[in-house]
Amino acid sequence: MSDLLRLRPAATPAMIAVFDDDATIAHACAFEVALARAQAAEGVIAPAVAEAIATGVASARIDPGELAEAAALAGTLAIPLMARLRAGLSGDAAKALHRGATSQDVADSVLMMQVRAAHDLLSVDGHRVRAALARHAMDHAATPAVGRTLLQDALPVAFGLRLAQAAAGIADALEQLDAAVARHAVVQLGGAAGTRAGMDGRGAAVAAHMADALGLATAPPWHARRTGVAAIGAAVGILIGALGKSARDVALLAQNAVGEAQEPVIAGRGGSSAMAHKRNPTGCQVALSAATRAPGLVAALLAGMPQEQERGLGGWQAEGPVLADLFLLASGSAAAMAVVAKGLAIDVDAIARNRAAAGMGEDMGESVGIIAALLDDRD
Amino acid sequence: MSDLLRLRPAATPAMIAVFDDDATIAHACAFEVALARAQAAEGVIAPAVAEAIATGVASARIDPGELAEAAALAGTLAIPLMARLRAGLSGDAAKALHRGATSQDVADSVLMMQVRAAHDLLSVDGHRVRAALARHAMDHAATPAVGRTLLQDALPVAFGLRLAQAAAGIADALEQLDAAVARHAVVQLGGAAGTRAGMDGRGAAVAAHMADALGLATAPPWHARRTGVAAIGAAVGILIGALGKSARDVALLAQNAVGEAQEPVIAGRGGSSAMAHKRNPTGCQVALSAATRAPGLVAALLAGMPQEQERGLGGWQAEGPVLADLFLLASGSAAAMAVVAKGLAIDVDAIARNRAAAGMGEDMGESVGIIAALLDDRD
Amino acid sequence: MSDLLRLRPAATPAMIAVFDDDATIAHACAFEVALARAQAAEGVIAPAVAEAIATGVASARIDPGELAEAAALAGTLAIPLMARLRAGLSGDAAKALHRGATSQDVADSVLMMQVRAAHDLLSVDGHRVRAALARHAMDHAATPAVGRTLLQDALPVAFGLRLAQAAAGIADALEQLDAAVARHAVVQLGGAAGTRAGMDGRGAAVAAHMADALGLATAPPWHARRTGVAAIGAAVGILIGALGKSARDVALLAQNAVGEAQEPVIAGRGGSSAMAHKRNPTGCQVALSAATRAPGLVAALLAGMPQEQERGLGGWQAEGPVLADLFLLASGSAAAMAVVAKGLAIDVDAIARNRAAAGMGEDMGESVGIIAALLDDRD
Amino acid sequence: MSDLLRLRPAATPAMIAVFDDDATIAHACAFEVALARAQAAEGVIAPAVAEAIATGVASARIDPGELAEAAALAGTLAIPLMARLRAGLSGDAAKALHRGATSQDVADSVLMMQVRAAHDLLSVDGHRVRAALARHAMDHAATPAVGRTLLQDALPVAFGLRLAQAAAGIADALEQLDAAVARHAVVQLGGAAGTRAGMDGRGAAVAAHMADALGLATAPPWHARRTGVAAIGAAVGILIGALGKSARDVALLAQNAVGEAQEPVIAGRGGSSAMAHKRNPTGCQVALSAATRAPGLVAALLAGMPQEQERGLGGWQAEGPVLADLFLLASGSAAAMAVVAKGLAIDVDAIARNRAAAGMGEDMGESVGIIAALLDDRD
Repeated sequence: MSDLLRLRPAATPAMIAVFDDDATIAHACAFEVALARAQAAEGVIAPAVAEAIATGVASARIDPGELAEAAALAGTLAIPLMARLRAGLSGDAAKALHRGATSQDVADSVLMMQVRAAHDLLSVDGHRVRAALARHAMDHAATPAVGRTLLQDALPVAFGLRLAQAAAGIADALEQLDAAVARHAVVQLGGAAGTRAGMDGRGAAVAAHMADALGLATAPPWHARRTGVAAIGAAVGILIGALGKSARDVALLAQNAVGEAQEPVIAGRGGSSAMAHKRNPTGCQVALSAATRAPGLVAALLAGMPQEQERGLGGWQAEGPVLADLFLLASGSAAAMAVVAKGLAIDVDAIARNRAAAGMGEDMGESVGIIAALLDDRD
Repeated sequence: MSDLLRLRPAATPAMIAVFDDDATIAHACAFEVALARAQAAEGVIAPAVAEAIATGVASARIDPGELAEAAALAGTLAIPLMARLRAGLSGDAAKALHRGATSQDVADSVLMMQVRAAHDLLSVDGHRVRAALARHAMDHAATPAVGRTLLQDALPVAFGLRLAQAAAGIADALEQLDAAVARHAVVQLGGAAGTRAGMDGRGAAVAAHMADALGLATAPPWHARRTGVAAIGAAVGILIGALGKSARDVALLAQNAVGEAQEPVIAGRGGSSAMAHKRNPTGCQVALSAATRAPGLVAALLAGMPQEQERGLGGWQAEGPVLADLFLLASGSAAAMAVVAKGLAIDVDAIARNRAAAGMGEDMGESVGIIAALLDDRD
Repeated sequence: MSDLLRLRPAATPAMIAVFDDDATIAHACAFEVALARAQAAEGVIAPAVAEAIATGVASARIDPGELAEAAALAGTLAIPLMARLRAGLSGDAAKALHRGATSQDVADSVLMMQVRAAHDLLSVDGHRVRAALARHAMDHAATPAVGRTLLQDALPVAFGLRLAQAAAGIADALEQLDAAVARHAVVQLGGAAGTRAGMDGRGAAVAAHMADALGLATAPPWHARRTGVAAIGAAVGILIGALGKSARDVALLAQNAVGEAQEPVIAGRGGSSAMAHKRNPTGCQVALSAATRAPGLVAALLAGMPQEQERGLGGWQAEGPVLADLFLLASGSAAAMAVVAKGLAIDVDAIARNRAAAGMGEDMGESVGIIAALLDDRD
Repeated sequence: MSDLLRLRPAATPAMIAVFDDDATIAHACAFEVALARAQAAEGVIAPAVAEAIATGVASARIDPGELAEAAALAGTLAIPLMARLRAGLSGDAAKALHRGATSQDVADSVLMMQVRAAHDLLSVDGHRVRAALARHAMDHAATPAVGRTLLQDALPVAFGLRLAQAAAGIADALEQLDAAVARHAVVQLGGAAGTRAGMDGRGAAVAAHMADALGLATAPPWHARRTGVAAIGAAVGILIGALGKSARDVALLAQNAVGEAQEPVIAGRGGSSAMAHKRNPTGCQVALSAATRAPGLVAALLAGMPQEQERGLGGWQAEGPVLADLFLLASGSAAAMAVVAKGLAIDVDAIARNRAAAGMGEDMGESVGIIAALLDDRD
C-alpha cells in the first residue's frame, strides 16, 4: 500500500515525512519517555523507573502497518502502542508507563510536535517565495506596466507592485502562522478527564518539564478547548491563500496573449502529454490546487470545535488528519512557488509592448513608495 | 421588503444595525468627507473645497432602496452614490469629490469601519459570557461531579472545570479577535490601480489622516491582498466555535436524564408550540446554529483570497456580506450565551446524585489548580 | 432597518421577495389553513372550525418586525405567530388552530414552499443562460479559435465549443436541481415528536391533503432526516458552480489582451468610479462572487445533518437561512449571466487574429459533433 | 513512508486499496490498452499495434514511488507513465500509445474507475447499516420510549422510530449516490483541447468502446464541465451526514445516564488507555469524525467548479484527492456503523425505566405506520 501518487504532487517529501507513520510513532515514544522523566524529576516515579522506560521504549520495534490495524480497531493509537511498549518493560516500568496520561494526551502532543516540525519546514519555503518575489519587485519597481483590475486594463503600475503585494501578503501570513504556532503548539497532559489525576498533584510541573523536553509550550489541559488547533489551521489556510494569490497572478501573466512573465524552464516540468511545445504553469497549478482545497479543511477544523464535555467524540479525532493535510498542501504550494518565484522569467519587452498597446503612459503614481512600504525593512 | 424573520433569530438588533443600509451609507459618506479633509490637510485640494464637500455630503438624503437598485446595476456602490452626492455639490467640490479614490477604497474602508463597530459590540457580549462562566466555575471549583469523555462517564472532575475550560476558550478567541482587528482593520486608499495616482504624491499621508479620522489603522493599499480580511473572519469563526463549545456542554447538562444545569427561565423563551411543559435550551440552539453556519463562511473568505492582479473579480465582492454574516452570527451567539451563562441554573443535588450513581468518589485531581490557571488573573 | 445594499447586488428582487418576511408569514398562514382544512377533510376537526380558522387567519394583520422580535425571543416563529393568529379566533377554532403540529412542521413546510417558488424562478433564468449560450455555440460551431488549457494556448477548437460546454454544464445542473426539488420538496407534518400524535390516526392522510394544497410532495415526517434539504442545497450549489464556469470563461475572453468576447453594453452597468473608459465584466463578477460564497453554504447544510433524536438542536435551525442564501446567490448569478449570455459581444476578427498569432490552423477535430452532442435536442 | 496511522482509523483497507498507487497505475494502464483497442476497432490504428501495446503494457513494471516523484515534477501522471510504458514498446506501438489522448483523459478516467469500485464497496456497507437499523426498528416498532427534541424529553415514540428515521435517511442517501454514479461515472476522452483531434473523426465511437471496456458510461468530453464530479462528491457527503445522524443518536443513547442502547462489545475496541472499565462508542466516533470532515471536502469540489477554458488550472487537479478522501471517510463510517448497527445492544428495561421517570404514557401516535412507511418495502 502506498498512496504517493495522490500525496506527492501536492506535498513535499520532507513534509510527508513529518506526518508519516515513523514520525508519529517516534513522537509518541518521545512523549512517553518525556512523561516518565518529567514524573521522575517531580518525584512521582523513581528515576530508575523512568530510565527503564526510556531504555525499553528506545529498543521497541513497532510495525506501523500492524499498529495501524490495531489502532483502527481500538479507536485510538495509544492503547495498542502502550501494549507494545509495555511488552518490552517489566515490573515498575511496565506499570509506570503512560501513568496519568490518556490517549488524547499522546495524540495531541504528537500532533503539536508535528506542527512544530511542519512550521519550521514551511517557514523556510514561505520565506523563499517572499524573498524571491520581493527581489523581482525591487528590480521592477520602476518598470511601468499595465495595471489590471476586474481583469481589465486599468492604469499604469510599476510591474513590481503586483509582486510586492503578493510578497507582502505572504509575509503577513507567515507572521500570523508564527504567532499561532508560538502560542498554540502546546503539550497536552490532562489525563483521563483532564484533571491531571494520578500525578500526585505535580501535574502542572510535569507538563512543564515535558514541554521543555518536547519543544512545546505549556498550558492547562486543552482536550476540548480547540481554539489553538483552529488558529493554527486557519493560519496555514491563510498562507495557502496568500500563496495562491501569487500563483493566480503568475498564471495570468503567463497567458500567451499577455506574456509578461513565465515560470522558469525546468527539465521534466510543465510539459503536456499531448502537446510537446507547451509550457504549462505547473508550479502555479500546485498552488492554486492547494488554494482550492484548503478552505474546506479549515472549515472542518472550525466545525469540530464544539466538543463535548471533558473530551469529545469525533471532533478532535477529525483534527489530526485535517491539520496534516493543511500543512501538506502548504508545503507543496510553498515549494512550488519558491521555484516559480526564484526563476520567474520576466519579459520587459512584452511589458512595454502591452503598455503601449493599451495606450498607457508611465505615471505609476506612488508605486515606488508603496513597494518600499510593502517590502518594509525585510529585505 | 424586510427579512428580519431570517436575520433576527440569529443576530442582535445592534449588530444588524452595524451592517444595515443606513450604517453603510453613513460610513461611505464619512469616507468621502475624510478623504477630502485629508487631501486638504496635505494640500491636494483647497480647504474650502473640502468643507464644501463635507457640507454637501452632510445634507444629502439618500434613499437606500433606490441606491441599492442602482448599485446592483452598476456592480458597485460607489458610482451611484457619488452621482447622488455630487448632485448636491457644485464647481470644484463636485470635481474634487472622491478624487483619487476607487470604488473598492470606499467598500473596503466602510467594511473595516463596520468591523470596528462590530468588534466593539461583540467584545462586550463575549466578555459577558466569559465572565459569567468564570464566576460559576469558581463557585463550583470544589464541587465534585461526573467527568465525561467520548460521551461516557469517566472520572470525577470539579463541576467548575468544564465551565472554566469553556470560559478560557472564549477568552482565547476574544484575544485572537482583538489582535486581528487591531492589526487588520485598515483604511483602504489605493485609487483605481492601487498606486495612489492622482494624489500629488501625498497618498500615504492622506491615508494616514483618513485612518485617524475614521478610527482605523493605516497601511499600503491592500486591494488584492486579503490576508487581513481572512484573519478577521477566521477569528470570528473561532469565537463562534468557542461559544458553541459552551452551548454544547450546557445543552448536554440540561438533558432531563442529566439535569445538572439548565438555561434560566425567561418569559416567552424556550417554549414549545406543542408541549407547554417543555423548557428548550433556546440560547444554546442559537449558539449551536451559529457554530454550524460559521465554518463555511470562513471557508468562503479563504476561497476568495487568490484575487487577480491589482484588484480582483468576484473575490473581494464576496467578502463584505460574508464577513457581515460572521459578525451577525457571532452577535446572536454571544448575546444568547451571555444570558444562558449569567442565569445558568446549576443543580448541585443532581450533580451529587449523578456522581453517586456513577460510583465516583471525590478525587478531582488538580481541578482546582487548573481552574485557577484557566481563569488566570482575568477575574 | 434595510439591508438591500448587502443583499441586492447578489440577488434578484423576485428572489428576495420569495424569502422575505411577508412571504414567510403568508406561507406559515397557508400552512395553518391547509392543516385545518385537511383535518376537517379527515374528520379530525369540524369543517366549520376549519373555515373559522381560514377566515380568522385571512384577516390577521401581522407586523413582521414585531413578530421577528418575539420569534427571536421564543426561539421559534410558530409560538408568537400562533398567539397572534389565535387572538383573532375564538372557541373551537382557537383551540383547533395548529392542532397536532409543532414549530418545525411550520418552519420546514414554509421553507419547502419557498424552495418551490425559488426553484421556479431560478429555472427560468437558468434556462435563459443555457439557451443563450447554446445559440452562440451553434452560431460559432464552425469558427476556429484558440483552444486554451492550463491557461496556455493549446490546439484549435470551435469557438462555440467552450460555450457549449458551459451550456451543457448548466443544463446538467438544472436537471439535478429539478430532480432534487421534485423529490425533496416535501410537506412536513410530524407533530411534537414526529409521531403525528393528536391526529386521531389520520396523520398520513392529513399530510397528503396538505401537500396537495400547498403544492408539495408528501412523505413520512423528516424532522431529523435532512438528506432532502442537503440534496436541494447541493444542487443549487452545483448550479452556481456551473454558472461560475461560464462567468470565468467570459471574463477571460474579455481581457483586453484577448478581446474575443465582451459583456453587452448596458447603461449604468460595468463602469468604474475612477476610470470612465472602463468596461468591467460586472455580470461575471456577480456569478464569480456567488461561486466563491456557495461552497461554504453547502458545507453548512452538510455539517448540520447529524441531528439529534426526534428533532435536533441547532442543526435544522441553521438550514433555513443557509438554503435561502443559496437560492438568493443563484438568482443573482443566473440573472446576471442571462444578460451576459444573451448580449455577449463576440469579436470574430479578434478570434481569427489570436488564432493566427498563435500559429494555429483550422483543424477543430470533432468540435462540431461534440457541440451537437452537448446541446443535444434541447434547442 | 507509510501513513496508515493517519488513514486507517478513518477508512477501510478495501477502500484504501481502491485509491492506492497500485490501483491507480493499473487503471491508467487499462485506460491505455482500452484506448488502443478501441482505436483498432474503429480502424484508427492497426489491431496488431493495439495488441502490441496491450502486451507491452501488461509486462511493464512500474515503481510507484519513483513514478510519483516524476509525476510530481511533471505536474501530471501521464507524461512519466507514458515514458515508462513506451520504453517497453517499439515502432508503431510506441508511436500509437496514448494517441489522441491527454493527461487529463487518463486522470479523469482513472478517477471514475475508482469511483465505480468505491461505490460498489460503499454500497454494500451502507446497505448493511440500513438493514441492521431497519431490523431493530421493526423489532422495536411497538416499544414505547421517550421521544426527545431539542435534547429535551418531549412525547413518547416507538423506540424503533428513531432507528427507522436513520435507516430511511441512509437509504435515501444511497439512492442519491447510486443515481449520481450511474449518471456521472463517465469515461473521459477529449484529447489535448477537448476536440478529439487526432482520432480520424472516430472519437465518439472510440470513447464508446472504451466506456464498455472500462465499465463506465460515455458522454462528450467533460474536461472543464465538472457537474458530475461535484454531484458524486455531494452524494457521498450526504451519505456521510446520514450515517453521522445514526451515530449521533447511538452515542446519545449510550450515555450512562440514558443507557438505552450501546455499541456491541468487541475485543480490542472502545477501550480507554486510562480507564479500563470504559466502553467508548468508537464506531460512532469514526462516523462523527467523518461527518465533521466531509462538508469541507464537498465545499472544495464545488469551489473548484469554475474551471478555465478547455481545461483548467488547479481546479480539476484538486478533485482527485478530495473525492478519494470522501470515499475513504465514507468507507470508514459505513463499516463502523455496520458493526454498531448490527450488534446494537438495546436495553428495553432502561427504555421503560426512562419513560416511567419522564412520566410518559404509551401513546406513540402513528409511530408504527410511520416506521412501516419509512422502511417501505425495502426489507
